[in-house]
Amino acid sequence: MKFFIYLVTTILVVLTSNTIYAQYDSLQIYKNYRNIVEKIFNAAHRDSSAWQQLAYMCDTYGPRLCGSEGLEKSLNYMFEQMKNDGLQNVRKDEVMVPKWVRGDEYCGMISPRKTKLHFLSLGGSVSTPKDGITSEVIVVKSFDELDRRKNEIKGKIVLYNEPYINYGQAVAYRWAGAVNAAKYGAVASLCRSVSPIGMQSPHTGSIMPYPDTLTKIPHGALSHEDADMIERIVSRGEKVILKIYMEAQTLPDVMSFNVIGELKGTEKPQEIITIGGHSDSWDVGSGAQDDASACFATWKALKILNDLGLKPKRTIRVVLWVNEENGLRGGKDYAERYKNENHILLFEFDSGIFPIGEFGINGSDSVFSKAKSIEKVLRDFGNIRIKKGAWGIDAQQLAELKKIPLMNFNTDDEEKYFWFHHSATDTPDKINPKDMNDCIAAIAAMMYIYSDLP
Amino acid sequence: MKFFIYLVTTILVVLTSNTIYAQYDSLQIYKNYRNIVEKIFNAAHRDSSAWQQLAYMCDTYGPRLCGSEGLEKSLNYMFEQMKNDGLQNVRKDEVMVPKWVRGDEYCGMISPRKTKLHFLSLGGSVSTPKDGITSEVIVVKSFDELDRRKNEIKGKIVLYNEPYINYGQAVAYRWAGAVNAAKYGAVASLCRSVSPIGMQSPHTGSIMPYPDTLTKIPHGALSHEDADMIERIVSRGEKVILKIYMEAQTLPDVMSFNVIGELKGTEKPQEIITIGGHSDSWDVGSGAQDDASACFATWKALKILNDLGLKPKRTIRVVLWVNEENGLRGGKDYAERYKNENHILLFEFDSGIFPIGEFGINGSDSVFSKAKSIEKVLRDFGNIRIKKGAWGIDAQQLAELKKIPLMNFNTDDEEKYFWFHHSATDTPDKINPKDMNDCIAAIAAMMYIYSDLP
Repeated sequence: MKFFIYLVTTILVVLTSNTIYAQYDSLQIYKNYRNIVEKIFNAAHRDSSAWQQLAYMCDTYGPRLCGSEGLEKSLNYMFEQMKNDGLQNVRKDEVMVPKWVRGDEYCGMISPRKTKLHFLSLGGSVSTPKDGITSEVIVVKSFDELDRRKNEIKGKIVLYNEPYINYGQAVAYRWAGAVNAAKYGAVASLCRSVSPIGMQSPHTGSIMPYPDTLTKIPHGALSHEDADMIERIVSRGEKVILKIYMEAQTLPDVMSFNVIGELKGTEKPQEIITIGGHSDSWDVGSGAQDDASACFATWKALKILNDLGLKPKRTIRVVLWVNEENGLRGGKDYAERYKNENHILLFEFDSGIFPIGEFGINGSDSVFSKAKSIEKVLRDFGNIRIKKGAWGIDAQQLAELKKIPLMNFNTDDEEKYFWFHHSATDTPDKINPKDMNDCIAAIAAMMYIYSDLP
Repeated sequence: MKFFIYLVTTILVVLTSNTIYAQYDSLQIYKNYRNIVEKIFNAAHRDSSAWQQLAYMCDTYGPRLCGSEGLEKSLNYMFEQMKNDGLQNVRKDEVMVPKWVRGDEYCGMISPRKTKLHFLSLGGSVSTPKDGITSEVIVVKSFDELDRRKNEIKGKIVLYNEPYINYGQAVAYRWAGAVNAAKYGAVASLCRSVSPIGMQSPHTGSIMPYPDTLTKIPHGALSHEDADMIERIVSRGEKVILKIYMEAQTLPDVMSFNVIGELKGTEKPQEIITIGGHSDSWDVGSGAQDDASACFATWKALKILNDLGLKPKRTIRVVLWVNEENGLRGGKDYAERYKNENHILLFEFDSGIFPIGEFGINGSDSVFSKAKSIEKVLRDFGNIRIKKGAWGIDAQQLAELKKIPLMNFNTDDEEKYFWFHHSATDTPDKINPKDMNDCIAAIAAMMYIYSDLP
């Protein structure tokens, strides 16, 4: 998730016109919807199907990288369960997706001491030669330092080891590390895993495309502990020699699909609110937080409305976008396929489930006013806030194209999300079922009221 | 460390006589030692050698399981550095130690889905047959449940998956899991890793000896995430088949040694205060917290006194006990070798370095009063408390034998210690150098004043 957030966050600020509509009346909305929201929260907390099905899917089919059997089985499982939950027009929109496979891999220190390191190839990387790459490491803290030391890089393995301050700052070395090191003749590159904590857990994720003129080099991630150890040894004036072996390769694209379901609007069915998360994950852990949590949270929000017989005035559509992690093909397909429909809001959830938090929204003053007017009634059920500003890379494909308001949801322990993100630790136990039911209820209530208001 | 703490904690309560001596006067001690303690803290914070040398040792020689090259090189390094630091009578006391080796190992789920699990053999375990062990898992939450279901155990792999409440409760399954499962005909056993958190990090540690009548079975630890996944799958009524492969074996004992150094007492050199930690570690991570932190903290406390020309009235001896993790041979050798010397206090530190905490002490009212009277002057330099009750399994060998007061030190984030304990995450970055210097100063001040008082 989120690998573009900080790169593009400034692109979207105000997408729709600045026409000022009549202010929405929070108090009136509170009076009209208080009982309905209470019913939604009560129903969500009686229904344990979201966490149970998420855990079943993760345990049974494993991680969901595009092109894997795990993804295809999981998509079919979610498709069937969405139908069982009574959603309408449940369907598959076919999308061609890339297929990158990890294969076997190894990274070890050869000198001054032999030890295996905690390592993951980064998604999209090329392999090493069959005998691996054995070379000295040069440790840099930043791209600036790399540039300053460009004459030392040739033939070496570059290790970027700038500590995590925030995701945007840290992810730059995962994303652009190989391209920048290859420019100066490095034979491979490594980044410090993008996470606030170490715990010997390497984190994978995707890398940027190379310019055509550049020779591709293998790129991987080390645990914080191993990166720091190498830096300490080098800083003592000792040479560190590493051996890296990677079988990573990109195979031909394969067919996959977005999973879609709806609750049809009763008064304005042609006006569409799209909500969702991405169905694919990285190939380690089981992508429980990133982003199965959002797939189940958004579709189960519709299930709750449906179970309660709460029929939205406008159509609310859930989309489980495929291939967010390494290609955005699902988001792009959705934008292209549905660009002529009348979307009034696009909502994406991709920051994990922790204690309930805030909805962000991009759009006109009127759009913000509409969302903000719903805050009062939601606050009876948790510390839920509405703020300006949103991101969501799948939904953004259509939001940008057609200037449609974009909404997202951030839970209140987002930093912790990055403990697990793209690593083997992203498993169902990281999701508290009570928090999940809160999120489901908050999304259901927000979308139901938003769909109802003028 | 600590694998006996909760097993034996109640054995030691009052070791020395209950004779009541004159009360020590906190205020007078404060007046007499306030400036000295300030000098000690200032000197400790100027001296970065403790953390630097610890990191150098961990990075250069790796983990320190008994019988490994890493331990022998580390012991020699500490021996040389202790001499360089100006300690007196720096010497090696030879001790035969056990040699258990892990070898290659693997644990994977075969059915319902193939996936590698996060696994470590437990120290002292036997190997599997050459083809490994492939069998169904039975998950139990407790020894009580194991007993109730004893007729289901034969031929199965037992997985103990009781969540961590505290170390004592959780470690029972690591320690006694194999013996209890073997009783009922299990072919292997696994425990949930003994730690408050998961992070896909398995934790090793030692297991109890078998009664002669019992066939030994392989025993290992799984990450929390993998143990929980297996439990969830089984609880859904599905069979989980695991394959375990372990090469673990116990080789003949080898020679190792305790490292010992002293500051000779000026007035009563025959009265000895022994302080120390254990030099060995498990064979994953680098045993930085457990217990290199204490080795360096205690010996550097003596270095600080020596650097400042603060000569203790009684002899203060630092002992780096070997083989705490799987045999206690170092502690036993020390007790036997020095039992006829006149020890007035034995101090052991084995709970990791976090923000400064409390000294615990076992002994008579007078002994407690003496230690407690030093609290006031220490509190000017941190939240340092003196409380009744102490443990320390190496020092305890002599403390019990000769009824000598036992003291220990607990830092204030001890729970976090168990995040890293016996796992690959126990690396130098887990120790904050500032906290380490605080601990060194607190130990130096406590021991200097204790040695000085009547």
